[in-house]
Amino acid sequence: MKTGLKVIAPASVSNLACGFDTLGVAIDIPGDEIIGKWVDTPGVHITEITGRKKGITSDPAQNIAGITASALLKHLEEDGRGLELRIHKHIPGGSGLGSSASSATAAAVLVNEMLNRPLEKRDLIPFALEGEMIASGSRHGDNVVPALLGGLMLIRDIDTYDYHRIYTPRGLFMAILLPDISIATKTARGILRAEVPLSSMVRQAANLGSFVIAMHNGDLNLIRRSMEDLVIEPQRKHLIPHFDTIKETALTLGALSCSISGAGPAIFALCQEKLQATGIAAAMQKVYDDHKLDAKSYVGAINHEGTVLK
Amino acid sequence: MKTGLKVIAPASVSNLACGFDTLGVAIDIPGDEIIGKWVDTPGVHITEITGRKKGITSDPAQNIAGITASALLKHLEEDGRGLELRIHKHIPGGSGLGSSASSATAAAVLVNEMLNRPLEKRDLIPFALEGEMIASGSRHGDNVVPALLGGLMLIRDIDTYDYHRIYTPRGLFMAILLPDISIATKTARGILRAEVPLSSMVRQAANLGSFVIAMHNGDLNLIRRSMEDLVIEPQRKHLIPHFDTIKETALTLGALSCSISGAGPAIFALCQEKLQATGIAAAMQKVYDDHKLDAKSYVGAINHEGTVLK
Repeated sequence: MKTGLKVIAPASVSNLACGFDTLGVAIDIPGDEIIGKWVDTPGVHITEITGRKKGITSDPAQNIAGITASALLKHLEEDGRGLELRIHKHIPGGSGLGSSASSATAAAVLVNEMLNRPLEKRDLIPFALEGEMIASGSRHGDNVVPALLGGLMLIRDIDTYDYHRIYTPRGLFMAILLPDISIATKTARGILRAEVPLSSMVRQAANLGSFVIAMHNGDLNLIRRSMEDLVIEPQRKHLIPHFDTIKETALTLGALSCSISGAGPAIFALCQEKLQATGIAAAMQKVYDDHKLDAKSYVGAINHEGTVLK
Repeated sequence: MKTGLKVIAPASVSNLACGFDTLGVAIDIPGDEIIGKWVDTPGVHITEITGRKKGITSDPAQNIAGITASALLKHLEEDGRGLELRIHKHIPGGSGLGSSASSATAAAVLVNEMLNRPLEKRDLIPFALEGEMIASGSRHGDNVVPALLGGLMLIRDIDTYDYHRIYTPRGLFMAILLPDISIATKTARGILRAEVPLSSMVRQAANLGSFVIAMHNGDLNLIRRSMEDLVIEPQRKHLIPHFDTIKETALTLGALSCSISGAGPAIFALCQEKLQATGIAAAMQKVYDDHKLDAKSYVGAINHEGTVLK
């Protein structure tokens, strides 16, 4: 059995305008790292948290990585062991970039690797979900599944692990603006109306269907038309200062789509290629700079590896 | 210019459980026929209606085929001509099998053919929609588009003619039961609640997305799981006597899905192959026979031709 290993888990953008609680994609921006080591004292111990660690507890019974690691060790009947975790957060919590999911998938892959892979990667999903649920208050999988397995995923029904990879055209890139405010997923869910007009349901479903067709066919114009959000974005965008200006900026510069990443406040712009994404990220950043508001921007391709040993 | 031509338009099944107002597929069961002939008296004249003609007017200003033919002749600046139509209805009105759409596409293709195809087939959609709208009270295209062009279609936005073909695995067959009751589309729409729970929207959209993936991949089990209707079927099924028994019968015999065709009362069962569909159609028919209720059953493959000259 290995004694010290390092695992890295990517950030992810969920919802993607037309797939609330259903679509998620892993993104190649700096992800979360966890280093694990066997120790003599039984139980999971979090000895270090560095990076974007604001609001993240080192209590292993409360920390998402700790919860996930414990759940998996218990399942594998290895909970008599002592495991030390050192966590480096690149993805801040409450960002809308799947921070909780990354912590959970990193911990699950780490434990599995340290025990020489008793489980297939896909069998780790229940344990990562258990950890992530603590943070979001609900079980979706639209961050956990892409963060674990990479790529663009459609979650039909997470209770039965019924998820499906959607193949993406080459070259797609994300520009992301992360405003320096925090929105708890629980808060962002709480403001949503419990009911939706039937006509919006029809349109939203049609968009998700045509989004899948568009990705399969590499039809960028159809991707553009399909990625509209009639339901969630209008209810949440007021939580993010200058959202409309940022969206207009990105679309004017040719982004295929611009909407809220997950529960926000991160805003993503899906772009046709890296150069465009770089320009759009800079333009989105400038909107916040001009208003003297703090934000960080990122540019990243779709991550196809998911959570891996480094 | 040709003087006498015959056109045939297929029936179609819309909604398909997971795609209310969005999905439709053309089916090879006996379709509607229209024979057209130029005559001296200007205007459109309907001189004969035969077959399942109940409730269908021969007033060309009210008849769907008449309205469509007039609209297209006018657009092509040929409305000074005289056109005689003889209509044979195989698909009864108010059946849920796209009777109005078939009349409309048949008339549109007929006029276009009689004038030696001044328009592409897809350019006939606006005229067929204009005719069909009279019957349904709303513009959708989920019957008109497949009836005209054949195959399985996703309508993203009919106002911009944004529709997309979904490729289907080989061998799929439909079993259809048409109870001898009539449900006007306007009535079936009227009973629907104007709002749906957000959670149902999420599930319904995810199902439509996974339906597209399943059809692309030929994944029959995923087709089965995706074709569920949480929103429309529960609200409409009481309009159709013994719906639950028929559905249970079809699913027990292995149908991939069984739900209401369009606004009903027709019930479709999507099957893996012809023999299965034949058995399921007979079993569905037997439910009505046992209750001494009139119904007609059909079995048909997916029609890939659409509306054509015969």
